[in-house]
Amino acid sequence: MLYFENDYCEGAHEVILQKLLETNMEKLPGYGADRYSASAKEKIRTALDCPDADIFFLVGGTQTNAVVIGSLLRRYEGVLCASTGHIASHEAGAIEYTGHKVLPLPHEDGKVSAEAVKNYLETFYGDGNHEHMVFPGMLYISHPTEYGTLYTREELAALSAVCRQFAIPLYLDGARLGYALACPSSDVTLPDIARFTDVFYIGGTKAGALCGEAVVFPRKAPAHFLTMVKQQGALLAKGRLLGVQFDTLFTKDLYRRICKNAIDTAARLKEALLEKGYRLLLDSPTNQIFLILDNQKMEELGQWVKFSFWEAYDETHTVVRLATSWATRMCDVEELIRRL
Amino acid sequence: MLYFENDYCEGAHEVILQKLLETNMEKLPGYGADRYSASAKEKIRTALDCPDADIFFLVGGTQTNAVVIGSLLRRYEGVLCASTGHIASHEAGAIEYTGHKVLPLPHEDGKVSAEAVKNYLETFYGDGNHEHMVFPGMLYISHPTEYGTLYTREELAALSAVCRQFAIPLYLDGARLGYALACPSSDVTLPDIARFTDVFYIGGTKAGALCGEAVVFPRKAPAHFLTMVKQQGALLAKGRLLGVQFDTLFTKDLYRRICKNAIDTAARLKEALLEKGYRLLLDSPTNQIFLILDNQKMEELGQWVKFSFWEAYDETHTVVRLATSWATRMCDVEELIRRL
Amino acid sequence: MLYFENDYCEGAHEVILQKLLETNMEKLPGYGADRYSASAKEKIRTALDCPDADIFFLVGGTQTNAVVIGSLLRRYEGVLCASTGHIASHEAGAIEYTGHKVLPLPHEDGKVSAEAVKNYLETFYGDGNHEHMVFPGMLYISHPTEYGTLYTREELAALSAVCRQFAIPLYLDGARLGYALACPSSDVTLPDIARFTDVFYIGGTKAGALCGEAVVFPRKAPAHFLTMVKQQGALLAKGRLLGVQFDTLFTKDLYRRICKNAIDTAARLKEALLEKGYRLLLDSPTNQIFLILDNQKMEELGQWVKFSFWEAYDETHTVVRLATSWATRMCDVEELIRRL
Amino acid sequence: MLYFENDYCEGAHEVILQKLLETNMEKLPGYGADRYSASAKEKIRTALDCPDADIFFLVGGTQTNAVVIGSLLRRYEGVLCASTGHIASHEAGAIEYTGHKVLPLPHEDGKVSAEAVKNYLETFYGDGNHEHMVFPGMLYISHPTEYGTLYTREELAALSAVCRQFAIPLYLDGARLGYALACPSSDVTLPDIARFTDVFYIGGTKAGALCGEAVVFPRKAPAHFLTMVKQQGALLAKGRLLGVQFDTLFTKDLYRRICKNAIDTAARLKEALLEKGYRLLLDSPTNQIFLILDNQKMEELGQWVKFSFWEAYDETHTVVRLATSWATRMCDVEELIRRL
Repeated sequence: MLYFENDYCEGAHEVILQKLLETNMEKLPGYGADRYSASAKEKIRTALDCPDADIFFLVGGTQTNAVVIGSLLRRYEGVLCASTGHIASHEAGAIEYTGHKVLPLPHEDGKVSAEAVKNYLETFYGDGNHEHMVFPGMLYISHPTEYGTLYTREELAALSAVCRQFAIPLYLDGARLGYALACPSSDVTLPDIARFTDVFYIGGTKAGALCGEAVVFPRKAPAHFLTMVKQQGALLAKGRLLGVQFDTLFTKDLYRRICKNAIDTAARLKEALLEKGYRLLLDSPTNQIFLILDNQKMEELGQWVKFSFWEAYDETHTVVRLATSWATRMCDVEELIRRL
Repeated sequence: MLYFENDYCEGAHEVILQKLLETNMEKLPGYGADRYSASAKEKIRTALDCPDADIFFLVGGTQTNAVVIGSLLRRYEGVLCASTGHIASHEAGAIEYTGHKVLPLPHEDGKVSAEAVKNYLETFYGDGNHEHMVFPGMLYISHPTEYGTLYTREELAALSAVCRQFAIPLYLDGARLGYALACPSSDVTLPDIARFTDVFYIGGTKAGALCGEAVVFPRKAPAHFLTMVKQQGALLAKGRLLGVQFDTLFTKDLYRRICKNAIDTAARLKEALLEKGYRLLLDSPTNQIFLILDNQKMEELGQWVKFSFWEAYDETHTVVRLATSWATRMCDVEELIRRL
Repeated sequence: MLYFENDYCEGAHEVILQKLLETNMEKLPGYGADRYSASAKEKIRTALDCPDADIFFLVGGTQTNAVVIGSLLRRYEGVLCASTGHIASHEAGAIEYTGHKVLPLPHEDGKVSAEAVKNYLETFYGDGNHEHMVFPGMLYISHPTEYGTLYTREELAALSAVCRQFAIPLYLDGARLGYALACPSSDVTLPDIARFTDVFYIGGTKAGALCGEAVVFPRKAPAHFLTMVKQQGALLAKGRLLGVQFDTLFTKDLYRRICKNAIDTAARLKEALLEKGYRLLLDSPTNQIFLILDNQKMEELGQWVKFSFWEAYDETHTVVRLATSWATRMCDVEELIRRL
Repeated sequence: MLYFENDYCEGAHEVILQKLLETNMEKLPGYGADRYSASAKEKIRTALDCPDADIFFLVGGTQTNAVVIGSLLRRYEGVLCASTGHIASHEAGAIEYTGHKVLPLPHEDGKVSAEAVKNYLETFYGDGNHEHMVFPGMLYISHPTEYGTLYTREELAALSAVCRQFAIPLYLDGARLGYALACPSSDVTLPDIARFTDVFYIGGTKAGALCGEAVVFPRKAPAHFLTMVKQQGALLAKGRLLGVQFDTLFTKDLYRRICKNAIDTAARLKEALLEKGYRLLLDSPTNQIFLILDNQKMEELGQWVKFSFWEAYDETHTVVRLATSWATRMCDVEELIRRL
């Protein structure tokens, strides 16, 4: 069986595990006050070109979204988000559980446009009844999006400008940020993201770590953010587990190097798929490939390759997702291609 | 510097790390559906003598408390708890964040009595205005308590009987459960706990794991518990990280064996302290020792041994806590004793 | 100035005020335990042909929606609702404040179809990832809808059948229910509503009362509903204020009689508008009329008649709403018509 | 039967009802934008000597507490309160439902001291672990307290000083404020309260109104308070109902005059009770009298006079409460005294 089901089916990159082993018996303070966490933060600040960034390590993605959004919004505010956004659909209502509405925006292949955001905000403030409605208090985008698509630097700049005009924070969900940064066709850098957003996270879980997401406030975290993390049950006692992992990922460019593997293997696979006449739902430059398959073909492939169901396409076709990752071996891609 | 500050300042037991290394590149399904999680659950069921138990692995203690309590309570209910209970004081209001009140009970050295619980419940239902009050919907106890004390089997049986009489679940916080079970003076076994409670957790973080708590419903979990875990941001993508750790802890009696080390080292230390005339706040049979120190003495000791501040005792004395753990070396205890 | 802005700009029907005056100095128990509340409930049960209905009086509409929905949903569930539904747009996120997501459905003139509901539910349960999503736990409809449209008996029966098939409650927001019931073209009766829904409310605020909505559980209220009402700050100390009002509304058919006035005046107005060549957004049989006006015409009319802005229609036209009510005088309608 | 059960068993003062009748058919804007609300606010500002106060009218007491506290606290904060405070015990967990903990303080006859508050705050900030605890974000006091006792001006000034030192708002629950102000032994005026607190409410429900509490922010309301009121389902559509009532209460000193009746009748009753050898639980200067009765005596009295059960005193005695109100007739008091 070949595995292209998702990008989190292996453990961690072996350098990370080695480092966990090496540091294992050191006696370190808890809750993120250890020296590996400090070192990791310093390295990330350097990578961001953002010496004053406030950084926190959390365990998982839904948790991070709920903590960040729940901490930044005022209680009468909701969060703007593409209707396909992860928080809008696949987080079991974690945002609403914190009391906030997810305000859906139209999208194109998972991306929202500055125009759509501006239009929403102007319509809202132009409505005489808006005091009876949920205030749009934040913009959430994902990069890459849930469809593997990417914002350009210009698009990010435009989104940032609208958010600043209306004084709402721009939050970027970077669960797969490494795969965006490793994409040769993308002109967006880590310092760009730090400049354009008010908060974002650098995903570890899907990019080589056992777990862990690095939340970055390029300027300033909200007061008592740590207490809010604890209040949502998201403060890890042995913060070293996250600190050591991110310290390793940001040493010798490991994060970028291992993410590039996902892009290279995905590019090879896409090229071959198109050559063989397969139809893609959309053109994603990152590590996720959305194939439109005849249902019978899907059955056949399912015998020997693992992928994920994405959505029904029509009565006789289905969209499936193949994902590569930091751990995908090119030889497995070649075997897949041979047998397609 | 000698370290007796807490029981979570090292990483994980080396057998656990080895197992993580060994299984690292296996491709496994996420969210706890992997075979190591399945195997761990099976081994725990055997240890509990409870073949039908529903078991879930969560990451940390406050998270577990918030998820379990927030999932079991009806929305008009609160949770009864010793006023010194962890959820009442040191979890940043995580329970209230889920909308539920913590209802404080009187305690003795951290323990609540069946009488106190019964008295609360009878007074509540006897009050003609109780429809205007928070319903007591659950009892939370910790074992060991925050003061390192233990319930006897008889006491647990009595608490369980009151809870069943009033049809409220009994929840046992086992953050340090391993240390309770390893205590020679205790007559409470793991099967006892499964029999007397409705839900409890077996703590991993403080007993040899990098992270992880095993939530056990000896009879039946609430419907869609997994969704509620996700809704609170507590569902780990790479569930294998928890599965492998608990699978290892419950193989060849590792959990009990490593916890015993904490008890043995603590016992040696307590004996020596008493011999040398130190005063203990209370007699804790587990791995936490509460010393009453003259403030000057505390300063002196603080130069070469790490402990935690517990509470002010009087104007000139302070209570400090020394903790041993699965990782404490007897030679460090002996050195500490020599220099006291 | 003529007033057609909304249906809550006067106080109460004078018979209600008289009754409040008459009963004012009687010493009565609080919190709804008074005899007027009891009598009102009995009369409503008779009108519903539903002798076992559980009935509660609340103060306002948004409050009622938040209390009912927040009390019936399990914590991992959301409420299905037309994307134009009041709870989805104009209640300041009151539902999300209770932790629950509003799940938007497609609609036609404010109405949802049994097909749309069934399709949502089947797609949800057919999705292999649905444990990571918000469970659809309830259907909310309004009757009349926010667009003044009405369900037929057959449509209600079909919605009810889908809800029962999937075991989710059907909740009908009856803020303007009196105006639906008084509509000659409607075949839906109060007993029909009690039969097809699991909970609904009979609106008082917009139909002759100073305030007040009667929540009806035709079969059985959730346990401790009163406590949940209190928990959301919705329990009125002087419940008599609501009891006396509903007792009066359901005496000598007052509710139906005064609501009929709104329908008669609206019908006359609509007829005249169409005659004079005005364009309606849609055909509403109830007390709300949605006019498409040229923006300049809107300005002119705004000098001497009050209406509400509804939404922009296009660059040069606007939709405005004219509402009649229990208190609208036919002479004012005739004057309006004369001057149009 | 004589009624001394509570102070909300009648309707409204007749002048209020007359005014509701007079203004009933005026067409007025909703949600508090009517001219009676405006006029009432202006009169209250004058009475407070506080021309810039922001004032909002809400319907009931628990609702007001939940809205005010839930709007002012940051999400990681709780509210300090006497352990006997209404929000701590008799509001069905309405505060916790908004996600905030009630932090209990020691009290004397329902009053908290500046020392106790200061001690709590100093201990909290002195605790090295306070980032893991609920931040004390507000002080709640009631005046009169739940035991009918009153703060002196000096005590209020001291509480205010501590709150300002630690930059937390002081909130005064004035459900029965009229009875405090009418008390000859009290040196606290309405302008004092506006000066010492950051927010308080003037209770209408228990002092002559059908319903209604006037929330006063002497300096400035939080931004978008109206939206938060709506979000908690507390925004009344026909705001005139509250506006007219408070406009009347603050016309010709009605509020103070009718409250004085409660104090006069209570004073006469207390005097007579003491003369006849009855034992009081404490000396309350306001309209609530707490009697310690032999249980048999309680049974006898219960045959012909209504009072409320307060709490068990010992095995053979019970504390009961007798309350007078704006509506209590001196002739009923005299009859009660005669038959005691």
